[in-house]
Amino acid sequence: MRIDGRGAGQLRRVRMTADYTKYAEGSVLMEMGDTKVICNASVEVGVPPFLRDSGKGWVTAEYAMLPRATGTRSRRDISSLKLNGRAAEIQRLIGRALRSVTDLTALDGYTVTVDCDVIQADGGTRCASVTGGYLALWLACRKMMERGLITRMPLTAQVAAVSAGVVDGEVLLDLCYEEDSSAEADCNIILSSSGGIVELQGTGEERPFTEQELKGILSAAKRGNAALFRAQKKIMDARG
Amino acid sequence: MRIDGRGAGQLRRVRMTADYTKYAEGSVLMEMGDTKVICNASVEVGVPPFLRDSGKGWVTAEYAMLPRATGTRSRRDISSLKLNGRAAEIQRLIGRALRSVTDLTALDGYTVTVDCDVIQADGGTRCASVTGGYLALWLACRKMMERGLITRMPLTAQVAAVSAGVVDGEVLLDLCYEEDSSAEADCNIILSSSGGIVELQGTGEERPFTEQELKGILSAAKRGNAALFRAQKKIMDARG
Amino acid sequence: MRIDGRGAGQLRRVRMTADYTKYAEGSVLMEMGDTKVICNASVEVGVPPFLRDSGKGWVTAEYAMLPRATGTRSRRDISSLKLNGRAAEIQRLIGRALRSVTDLTALDGYTVTVDCDVIQADGGTRCASVTGGYLALWLACRKMMERGLITRMPLTAQVAAVSAGVVDGEVLLDLCYEEDSSAEADCNIILSSSGGIVELQGTGEERPFTEQELKGILSAAKRGNAALFRAQKKIMDARG
Amino acid sequence: MRIDGRGAGQLRRVRMTADYTKYAEGSVLMEMGDTKVICNASVEVGVPPFLRDSGKGWVTAEYAMLPRATGTRSRRDISSLKLNGRAAEIQRLIGRALRSVTDLTALDGYTVTVDCDVIQADGGTRCASVTGGYLALWLACRKMMERGLITRMPLTAQVAAVSAGVVDGEVLLDLCYEEDSSAEADCNIILSSSGGIVELQGTGEERPFTEQELKGILSAAKRGNAALFRAQKKIMDARG
Amino acid sequence: MRIDGRGAGQLRRVRMTADYTKYAEGSVLMEMGDTKVICNASVEVGVPPFLRDSGKGWVTAEYAMLPRATGTRSRRDISSLKLNGRAAEIQRLIGRALRSVTDLTALDGYTVTVDCDVIQADGGTRCASVTGGYLALWLACRKMMERGLITRMPLTAQVAAVSAGVVDGEVLLDLCYEEDSSAEADCNIILSSSGGIVELQGTGEERPFTEQELKGILSAAKRGNAALFRAQKKIMDARG
Amino acid sequence: MRIDGRGAGQLRRVRMTADYTKYAEGSVLMEMGDTKVICNASVEVGVPPFLRDSGKGWVTAEYAMLPRATGTRSRRDISSLKLNGRAAEIQRLIGRALRSVTDLTALDGYTVTVDCDVIQADGGTRCASVTGGYLALWLACRKMMERGLITRMPLTAQVAAVSAGVVDGEVLLDLCYEEDSSAEADCNIILSSSGGIVELQGTGEERPFTEQELKGILSAAKRGNAALFRAQKKIMDARG
Repeated sequence: MRIDGRGAGQLRRVRMTADYTKYAEGSVLMEMGDTKVICNASVEVGVPPFLRDSGKGWVTAEYAMLPRATGTRSRRDISSLKLNGRAAEIQRLIGRALRSVTDLTALDGYTVTVDCDVIQADGGTRCASVTGGYLALWLACRKMMERGLITRMPLTAQVAAVSAGVVDGEVLLDLCYEEDSSAEADCNIILSSSGGIVELQGTGEERPFTEQELKGILSAAKRGNAALFRAQKKIMDARG
Repeated sequence: MRIDGRGAGQLRRVRMTADYTKYAEGSVLMEMGDTKVICNASVEVGVPPFLRDSGKGWVTAEYAMLPRATGTRSRRDISSLKLNGRAAEIQRLIGRALRSVTDLTALDGYTVTVDCDVIQADGGTRCASVTGGYLALWLACRKMMERGLITRMPLTAQVAAVSAGVVDGEVLLDLCYEEDSSAEADCNIILSSSGGIVELQGTGEERPFTEQELKGILSAAKRGNAALFRAQKKIMDARG
Repeated sequence: MRIDGRGAGQLRRVRMTADYTKYAEGSVLMEMGDTKVICNASVEVGVPPFLRDSGKGWVTAEYAMLPRATGTRSRRDISSLKLNGRAAEIQRLIGRALRSVTDLTALDGYTVTVDCDVIQADGGTRCASVTGGYLALWLACRKMMERGLITRMPLTAQVAAVSAGVVDGEVLLDLCYEEDSSAEADCNIILSSSGGIVELQGTGEERPFTEQELKGILSAAKRGNAALFRAQKKIMDARG
Repeated sequence: MRIDGRGAGQLRRVRMTADYTKYAEGSVLMEMGDTKVICNASVEVGVPPFLRDSGKGWVTAEYAMLPRATGTRSRRDISSLKLNGRAAEIQRLIGRALRSVTDLTALDGYTVTVDCDVIQADGGTRCASVTGGYLALWLACRKMMERGLITRMPLTAQVAAVSAGVVDGEVLLDLCYEEDSSAEADCNIILSSSGGIVELQGTGEERPFTEQELKGILSAAKRGNAALFRAQKKIMDARG
Repeated sequence: MRIDGRGAGQLRRVRMTADYTKYAEGSVLMEMGDTKVICNASVEVGVPPFLRDSGKGWVTAEYAMLPRATGTRSRRDISSLKLNGRAAEIQRLIGRALRSVTDLTALDGYTVTVDCDVIQADGGTRCASVTGGYLALWLACRKMMERGLITRMPLTAQVAAVSAGVVDGEVLLDLCYEEDSSAEADCNIILSSSGGIVELQGTGEERPFTEQELKGILSAAKRGNAALFRAQKKIMDARG
Repeated sequence: MRIDGRGAGQLRRVRMTADYTKYAEGSVLMEMGDTKVICNASVEVGVPPFLRDSGKGWVTAEYAMLPRATGTRSRRDISSLKLNGRAAEIQRLIGRALRSVTDLTALDGYTVTVDCDVIQADGGTRCASVTGGYLALWLACRKMMERGLITRMPLTAQVAAVSAGVVDGEVLLDLCYEEDSSAEADCNIILSSSGGIVELQGTGEERPFTEQELKGILSAAKRGNAALFRAQKKIMDARG
């Protein structure tokens, strides 16, 4: 039995609130247990220099935490004049994941920026950002179609992410912060609803991990992501 | 009749949600209509260099907006490597306002940082930050007393803020963004519950304003702040 | 009797030296007692992005202090890589004040930047910057007319600023640094020569201040600004 | 047959030149084909604040490329005032990998910084940095023992890294830049000589990849890293 | 005959105004023709880390230009977040020159920072900064002695600087901006009153220059610096 | 006899390795004894704003040291967010020296950036950068001619640099770090192969130096640079 009463292969309570803020073209409050991330997708005209005249649009992501999203207050990046390395790493991951299911030619001339701002962090914030960010991006694309900015849905599949790891020798799904802190191995697994691994990041925290453990982690993650795909789909279907 | 159906001297719907996030010593979601600000007060051991060995603690504030808190996305400060001038101005204002009702000697050895992060902006964000920030600070001070960190409440009065301005020649209380954009004069009035003006900032936006208009603005603001003091008090009383 | 022998409603010695430096289109050394500010107005072709094709020009201001303008040396902004918050606040104020009396359509295609560099600070530097900055701007506009860059004077009225505050319960005009440090309330009042308040910033330093005190402050400031308008006018008239 | 004539499971020519520069406590020029990285390990007294009085030392890494290490010149980080996101991500990876085989208590009081500077990049620079960085760290630790700074070798196993990916449906080991650019999937696999996975990063570049492909990648990487362990060992043994 | 009527070996009008600002321990307005530099020497307790417990004090310099010290406005360093390279080069030069005549052991425990802020630039600003900076430093040292902070004068000789160059084949002393712009060679020569060259920087602007020209330049500079030493001495003697 | 057995007027072993890296249009590893600098010349289309439509191209230089190029590790510029002052000064010097022998009109439309990255520093890194940078620039220009980008060689003469100084009263050529640290005077002399001084920087380190010493230094430097010109020429001739 886990610290919060869950079974080994059980997700925390998942909640996706669409239209959480009123200005963003796509806005989602993504909650995985006590982890809460505001995912806002903003549509802007124009593309980065390296895509000029390429016939393609662009999707990118930014990730940040409120100073007190965690147990101790952290300084804002602007105070130290440096984007913290962890955020740099995470926002690159989110961007890659979202682009992996985007047909950029269908976005020609537009950039969609998905801002993932963590209000409260209790483990798994990068995974929640991918999963919620996808939904925000989908809402924004749908709005672009309604407004006639684009003619077809650029998203070719869903993408979702979940963490899984080894704690006390057992594979657990969707680690909360306390579990994450004592995990022997910790993986973030991003999957596509069309099947297959979009991105996989695994770290042996206290010791190297085995291929056997990796197999168990992937297996748990597949079940977890399937549930997340269903939760995304439910909201998408409601929009028709 | 105003754009949103209010009377000239009427506040928007005020909502203060205490304990909005779980880590901060004091946490409040402050809503004035569609303006939403997360106010988190964090307690840290230590004081800034200029107060070392002074027998005093410190209260300071930081203010920021999520990139898509407004109609168009704005870049994060860290992207331009500059704290934007408006935020710099506002967070200095919030800090002064909160310190004006704080007996810093009662906080000796501690710094309380009140982070005001605007989730959604519809006019009056700095005022909402002062009003909600005060409540977050009070909650944090109360927790410090419960934990025995300090022996008496450092806050000597309540502080609240509201905007008022002249639109089409008429004095209106608590301007929303659209009203603010077309105002002839725009004031932010910060009052103390013990009576008197803590800070007053008035700007003639399209033309200079008159002392007569200032008088009307102050009068409206007094009624508005009185209502805000009651709303704060209700939550404070509930905590006993 | 005040620390420097003045009466309560008396300005310090005011001196405005036009053409202080030789390159700037408008250059003024502004002195209020021992407060000395070089105000240089520079004309450049082009406008900021948000005004492109708007038919308008732009007026903006920058404010800085020499490291040893004050009793103790302060680090240059570039050493800490941060524009200090106080300077950010002040230069926004100066810019707003100057624009309040400028018809930007008459400046179409040009930006005038008014640099206010404090050589020596003895209280009231932001007010001196507004008053001297106005004159530098006027000189620059006049030069633009002489050179045929613009066809009419864009400045529609004069603008000047003075501080006033409550010290030991008495309203004093034009506080020097030592008075400012012990003031109970401190206001900066920016007026237009066409009548009316351009901007008003009042802070209760040691306690909230009353509407009655505000009335006295405004009354003193009106007399002070009238004298400043006359001093500006004298130089302007001499230029024909 | 691959672009450079190698077999699918064959590494490029591996060359490790110890003592490449004369000042660093550990210095290695690491070459994998045309990829060349200078790995310098520097020993400094002191530990970061979060380890103070913990009985532990620290190992960290920095990664950068010379401006013309690649086909087109890139700006130095200092020109844009930003550590580029890719470098931030990579140097965090190198640091984690090296710490995974370090007993930090054996380094108590010291920080070893491993600088990985890419002279020429032809794919696999992060893997070369881990493999060469390990050797530089080992050389530095050995020097610390010789000098009596520490009493036992802090490194508990070897660590090495290699890339492997899927190109045209086939699993290839140690991708060069041209292969990397057209890969369907691309993994970096960091292993420990004591067995097990230290870190695994896999990305589907053009499409999601399958568990079957992951299995082939891991299998190729194991053989590749075994060869790298032997190459490291040869140099280490020569030092006695 | 030169552009401003001077002879080839003649300095521009030299004016040194001591006690130019009221706060700095040493303050000089240094004028060479239309070149005007405020040189303020500030005394602070403490030394940089590399001198801790060395029995020595420190002398350093900072150099900057007001944005409109020149014909076109230049951005402030803080706007680009970069100290401009020219200023970096010049302030290192000034610091070295001042330290060359300072016995740092006589300043033990103190740092004197000499800020050279150019109000108006018409060629030769770095030389004016050295010459005026020396006098400001001397005034500050004298004040330190008066206050009993130090027991003997740390300055062992005077230092002064002047430019000289080749214009149209002729050696000219103390180039103004217009001459400097068309010079074939341009040197800055810093001499000590005790005899000898403190620092020499010569650049062939349009062509390499000859040893013969260098000899002429040095000869002119010696006469120029002799006059500057006398001007400094006159003020120093007046202080007794 | 010198520390490394050389005669007073003898250079250290000079080695220039052309085509050191494979991407840069011109690449040289420049070695003077243990001082090693990678000089990479990169050709890019476009010129800086101040040369637009001028009919000229541009040559510029950047200079940096690897963190452990010296006896103690130095922080990367990006860590402190500041280009260090010494590097700023040196890269300006290198750029001026290279431009002094370049006919910029022959480079119309192109910018060549010469990156000088010090791998190992043992005195004389700026001189080695000029000498090696010249050769890298020549190689790049030659490649531009081969590719038909330009029609004639823009370099009108060779340029090379060497240090010389006074140690224990004796003039020594090409100081190594240890000699440099104890030198009474230290000069960097940049000469053109067409005769004449391109740039001269001389500093009295422990005392002012005399014109007589300067004469000896120049004489030694002429012989040293002649040898460097021959070494450059040998490689250039081999390319035809």
